[in-house]
Amino acid sequence: MIAHTPEPPYYAVIFSNIRTDIEDGYKETSMEMVTLATQQKGYLGHESARNDLGITISYWDSLESIRIWKQQTDHLLAQRMGREKWYSAYKTRICVVQRDYAFGL
Amino acid sequence: MIAHTPEPPYYAVIFSNIRTDIEDGYKETSMEMVTLATQQKGYLGHESARNDLGITISYWDSLESIRIWKQQTDHLLAQRMGREKWYSAYKTRICVVQRDYAFGL
Repeated sequence: MIAHTPEPPYYAVIFSNIRTDIEDGYKETSMEMVTLATQQKGYLGHESARNDLGITISYWDSLESIRIWKQQTDHLLAQRMGREKWYSAYKTRICVVQRDYAFGL
Repeated sequence: MIAHTPEPPYYAVIFSNIRTDIEDGYKETSMEMVTLATQQKGYLGHESARNDLGITISYWDSLESIRIWKQQTDHLLAQRMGREKWYSAYKTRICVVQRDYAFGL
């Protein structure tokens, strides 16, 4: 569940979001987007948790890989449906991971 | 719930963790650490969610603020108890947030 990422530097996209109460394809599309992300060039892993707030972090090898994933056709459609139906608010943060350390991994 | 952070660049500490089944002061200490963090110099906000995986992200104005918070006495004690009792595994990632964008905020 904790992503096995390489030595820094690498990149993280933090997606913090609040859901509407509209289900309508949300779960299916979420799962499809995870599958699709894992197939993208430069994908390194992801982590996800949700209570009232949802947090999904995906890890990438470069800003170019993030840019291509953001523009992927099915992902663009999912982003639009996210704004129209599934999310009342979100914030996306593009980060460089400079340093990391672990316990018990 | 979504942190109101300033214009990038700023810093993020992503703490991805898996709990043991030991409660013993976990909730109390978690709440104390949140309170304490909000009082630190350079603290900008935090976000948290948990299912099987827990993710807590704190946002900071500089690496120096993160360093001081990591070394804060009560926080050092909480980190030690975390390793001894509350977490079976965790990964901490120190990041620079380079870019962000929001919807519905």
